[in-house]
Amino acid sequence: MLKNDLYLRALEGKPVKRPPVWMMRQAGRYLPSYLKLQEKYDFFTRCETPELVAEITCLPIDELEPDAAILFSDILVVPRAMGFPIEIVSGSGPVFGKTITKPEEAFHFDALQALESLDYVMQGIKATLQKLENRVPLIGFSGAPWTLFCYMIEGKGSRDFSKAKAFCYQHPEAAAHVLEVLTDIVIAYLKEQIRSGVHAVQVFDSWAGLLGPEDFFTYSFPYLKRISEEVSEAPVVLFAKGAWYALEQLAWSTQASALSVDWAVKPEYARKATRHGITLQGNFDPSRLLSPVSEIREKTREMIRRFGKDRYIVNLGHGILPHVPVAHAKAFIDTVKTYGEAS
Amino acid sequence: MLKNDLYLRALEGKPVKRPPVWMMRQAGRYLPSYLKLQEKYDFFTRCETPELVAEITCLPIDELEPDAAILFSDILVVPRAMGFPIEIVSGSGPVFGKTITKPEEAFHFDALQALESLDYVMQGIKATLQKLENRVPLIGFSGAPWTLFCYMIEGKGSRDFSKAKAFCYQHPEAAAHVLEVLTDIVIAYLKEQIRSGVHAVQVFDSWAGLLGPEDFFTYSFPYLKRISEEVSEAPVVLFAKGAWYALEQLAWSTQASALSVDWAVKPEYARKATRHGITLQGNFDPSRLLSPVSEIREKTREMIRRFGKDRYIVNLGHGILPHVPVAHAKAFIDTVKTYGEAS
Repeated sequence: MLKNDLYLRALEGKPVKRPPVWMMRQAGRYLPSYLKLQEKYDFFTRCETPELVAEITCLPIDELEPDAAILFSDILVVPRAMGFPIEIVSGSGPVFGKTITKPEEAFHFDALQALESLDYVMQGIKATLQKLENRVPLIGFSGAPWTLFCYMIEGKGSRDFSKAKAFCYQHPEAAAHVLEVLTDIVIAYLKEQIRSGVHAVQVFDSWAGLLGPEDFFTYSFPYLKRISEEVSEAPVVLFAKGAWYALEQLAWSTQASALSVDWAVKPEYARKATRHGITLQGNFDPSRLLSPVSEIREKTREMIRRFGKDRYIVNLGHGILPHVPVAHAKAFIDTVKTYGEAS
Repeated sequence: MLKNDLYLRALEGKPVKRPPVWMMRQAGRYLPSYLKLQEKYDFFTRCETPELVAEITCLPIDELEPDAAILFSDILVVPRAMGFPIEIVSGSGPVFGKTITKPEEAFHFDALQALESLDYVMQGIKATLQKLENRVPLIGFSGAPWTLFCYMIEGKGSRDFSKAKAFCYQHPEAAAHVLEVLTDIVIAYLKEQIRSGVHAVQVFDSWAGLLGPEDFFTYSFPYLKRISEEVSEAPVVLFAKGAWYALEQLAWSTQASALSVDWAVKPEYARKATRHGITLQGNFDPSRLLSPVSEIREKTREMIRRFGKDRYIVNLGHGILPHVPVAHAKAFIDTVKTYGEAS
């Protein structure tokens, strides 16, 4: 049914002529067409209106033609659905109107109710699939339990999320409870996305790398593992940003179909650490899209050579930056799409 | 002459009964005695008044008795001496009144003049040595060229320093020139600190880890290496935060006496990557000082067992956090000081 199933083939480990490519945050602020909608509708209106979700998700597909679409949404829709009021403050990011400050507060979340109020995401998926007309697969996603927990304790972005970490150290049972409940919600949420039609799902653990190795295996890994095991209806991609030390276990002790890696990881290290046993996704330095176009082309080709064309999904090592020229993003994608042709 | 030379013995690789301990930013905001001085004097007054430098540097020595003192100062005194006005904005950190925005602006720095205006640091060292009365060694320091460059381009803290990275990619010659000049200044500055009496120096490359491996070896490593080679009058400790992928080269292709490592690095990984060939310093997660005291003690002992007591300097993986209780910092230090005694 899909006209382009390269992304799914790479997830399944099937041989490909060239690797698929898409970009994290490809429907984002570097696109003038997105900025126009940003002027008209506030952030959560954009996330919660199925027609806008479909329109925004398809902007980069129309304009840049990557090999996969990712649903326009945000990891914070989950805590919002759980009753945390969130405001997006321009220039400084999300600010929560409420946080978990005491261990007692950790025991009052209703997973099922949260899920019901996320029905607009499912409507957004259906509207997007219609608009996509099977051109490329649609990726659903969720924040990882640890990363969502960070925001629910800290209430905003942080360089170290030390409040969230301190909560874990001081109230281990309450922390484990919140992380378990979040895991339940994330699993149900991703299953529902798959039922609504997404072809694969990605779990973003943006703050994994703030945890030392032992803490990662306490506060993040078990929950990522459980998600990968229980969401069996479609491929699961895990992105534990910064957790380079856990690549082997993420590859071999979870049921993930692929791992996304950040740009601090050399391709050779990532392949060796995962014992060539899993599809890898990444890891072009987002800042590198600010290089001259000739260098973007050269470094993209080199990256593919180093990862190898099979079991590989070309992507950035994190989200695309707002001030990247569209022509540079296009050069990145086009270089992948012509990979292997006479160069 | 020194009553306690444990830190210097560890740097030289000599056997010790127990490893030395100190904490990055040990003269900082977690200390009530420091907060009192913070209320009375603004940041640069504290850095630039030799009597205050001596007083602040000695606060943790008097109160917590670690095995080394680190001069109270800031990495930004160097760009400030180079003509960049800097304001410390409470809650959001340093803000530069001027930045390098065009490649032409990269060619107008006078290293020698900058150094002259840093004479107050040398006066601070002399005043501190008097006050220390040879109790422990005094560590001098500087920001690394790459990290100073980041601030000089970006003008403030940043999650990705993408402007600084873009400047490198778009104007490689101008970037290399600034980095070379900064290296000259850092070398002269550290040599002058040593002449003034510090026993060792540490170079802080706080933003090294924002660079992918290739970029690190272009924009950071060569300058760290040159500093380690040319500053031969006292031991040089390099702290390339986040550059876990470069530990082997930092250990074996520079003249550093020790490497400081952050808390994402397992002790076993750090030892193996450096082929047991260099003194290591670190790497207790600063957030972990917010754990209950019994856990701080246990994890500190475990860390020492894993690094091994020789060729090891106990420290945090980054600076101590402002909201750490003094009793917790003291528990950390005392645990090291009683290591090996009946426990």
